[in-house]
Amino acid sequence: MEFSLFNILDILGTAAFAISGALSAMNRRLDLFGIFIIAFVTAIGGGTLRDVLIGNTPVTWMENTLYIYLISVVTMLAILFRNYLNHLKKSLFLFDTIGLGVFTITGVEIGIRNELDPIISIALGGMTGAFGGVIRDILCNEIPVIFRKEEIYATACLVGGLIFVIMHDQDINTDVTYLVTSLTVIILRLLAVKYHITLPDFYPEKEQK
Amino acid sequence: MEFSLFNILDILGTAAFAISGALSAMNRRLDLFGIFIIAFVTAIGGGTLRDVLIGNTPVTWMENTLYIYLISVVTMLAILFRNYLNHLKKSLFLFDTIGLGVFTITGVEIGIRNELDPIISIALGGMTGAFGGVIRDILCNEIPVIFRKEEIYATACLVGGLIFVIMHDQDINTDVTYLVTSLTVIILRLLAVKYHITLPDFYPEKEQK
Amino acid sequence: MEFSLFNILDILGTAAFAISGALSAMNRRLDLFGIFIIAFVTAIGGGTLRDVLIGNTPVTWMENTLYIYLISVVTMLAILFRNYLNHLKKSLFLFDTIGLGVFTITGVEIGIRNELDPIISIALGGMTGAFGGVIRDILCNEIPVIFRKEEIYATACLVGGLIFVIMHDQDINTDVTYLVTSLTVIILRLLAVKYHITLPDFYPEKEQK
Repeated sequence: MEFSLFNILDILGTAAFAISGALSAMNRRLDLFGIFIIAFVTAIGGGTLRDVLIGNTPVTWMENTLYIYLISVVTMLAILFRNYLNHLKKSLFLFDTIGLGVFTITGVEIGIRNELDPIISIALGGMTGAFGGVIRDILCNEIPVIFRKEEIYATACLVGGLIFVIMHDQDINTDVTYLVTSLTVIILRLLAVKYHITLPDFYPEKEQK
Repeated sequence: MEFSLFNILDILGTAAFAISGALSAMNRRLDLFGIFIIAFVTAIGGGTLRDVLIGNTPVTWMENTLYIYLISVVTMLAILFRNYLNHLKKSLFLFDTIGLGVFTITGVEIGIRNELDPIISIALGGMTGAFGGVIRDILCNEIPVIFRKEEIYATACLVGGLIFVIMHDQDINTDVTYLVTSLTVIILRLLAVKYHITLPDFYPEKEQK
Repeated sequence: MEFSLFNILDILGTAAFAISGALSAMNRRLDLFGIFIIAFVTAIGGGTLRDVLIGNTPVTWMENTLYIYLISVVTMLAILFRNYLNHLKKSLFLFDTIGLGVFTITGVEIGIRNELDPIISIALGGMTGAFGGVIRDILCNEIPVIFRKEEIYATACLVGGLIFVIMHDQDINTDVTYLVTSLTVIILRLLAVKYHITLPDFYPEKEQK
């Protein structure tokens, strides 16, 4: 495993999602091993779904022990410093957003590497970014993140993925593309929450008499 | 992709589940991209599970952009005409039932094509038919469809699958088999709901003193 | 399929999880086919996840009709004798624990057979043991088993898996290893519940003013 920017982003995303999982599990008062399990599942969930869908098995985390050690260390740090992450909901949101941004882009990249159609690569990226958080929320009995209207989760993924595909098409330097697009997803979601930007819904005008 | 009856049923099931997902998401007041995502996941969920279980990867919707475009167009139509689908629960139920019937049968067929045992092909068909709706309901926080006692969901799948296997065994014309068995699943479920036909449950006689 | 101790444990785990699924479904008042489906999904869930993650497709239960017949027979027995399993929650807990213990160990074994790293094989074993029960609980709307603090579910898996890896490393007789480690998981969980042994949680000291 050489340490290209792709790998660094992958590690960063894994660590960020592990922290978000650990925070969520501590908040649910799970015990020590419960915290590790939720951290683990959150961190590897998106990549595992991606690998299974494209047929890359055994899945990535099984072929490389780096992931399991990284997640263990990060989870221990999250437990130790839990009182410093005190605005827990804000910390959770921040790490979830970093994970989302980074994993969306690595997912799109892997789709393109596997010669999938660009629009399908964007869908794959969105699933890779979102799935870990969705599992975490289902297991921790929270409303799944994809639901929370104020957070334009999906929109941020799609915009970031689209810019990635366009920049990739223009042969722009790969590392620049990674940084610009990951940051696009992260900043879009942070701004949307800060300024309460939402998209319209389409609730049918009820005629239930 | 030639347009055999198999493919037409596959497209019809995809469209029907996309509409059911879009209706469910609008009902939950998800935003524009949220609606697309639920429509997408509902429409491709069953086929994705089927492909992953038999090892047909990358999964079907990744190899053929038809699905993603079809789902997008159908979802846009569902949004535009949402006020005409006004008895939303009834519309949702109808499209869910069409998707169930069609996908159950294509699932059984693919099991047989892959030389799986007939009884295992029926199980695969049932999963293919039911899984999209189960994901939709879990993500939209509804009681999963498999649960709702009044709808004999599973029974309809199993009966349709069984008839398919028997007709296939008798070398009856494939297109006739598709039509008869899909319609069997659909009509069974519609009739069961209309006439409140249910199977017995087996709740233990409580002796909790 | 020769009948080694490995296969006998696999059959025992499948039957135990099928019973736990059937009990859970009867308790939820699902109809006849609903009961079969939950029994089936609970019994094959863990092994299916394991097979999909390592790329062993079509998954095991599709290649061998033994599973589907075994589950059907066991489920019918569970329905017939439902009134004798009258302390339903206790019966459910017991069968769930047997399934957990057995499947954790067969999962670790299959990881090692596939030349995965020992620590990753333990993670695979834990997932194989826990996943069936998690699906059962999500579909039956129960709090997922992994959650219930009093049961040290995850801890039992990890301890059993660790002992397996150590014994395997010491070239101890395989059958002895299977028995010792399966029983370790089962007994640990039973004792923990009986004597209310729990691990600490790490709920952050709230400073929310």
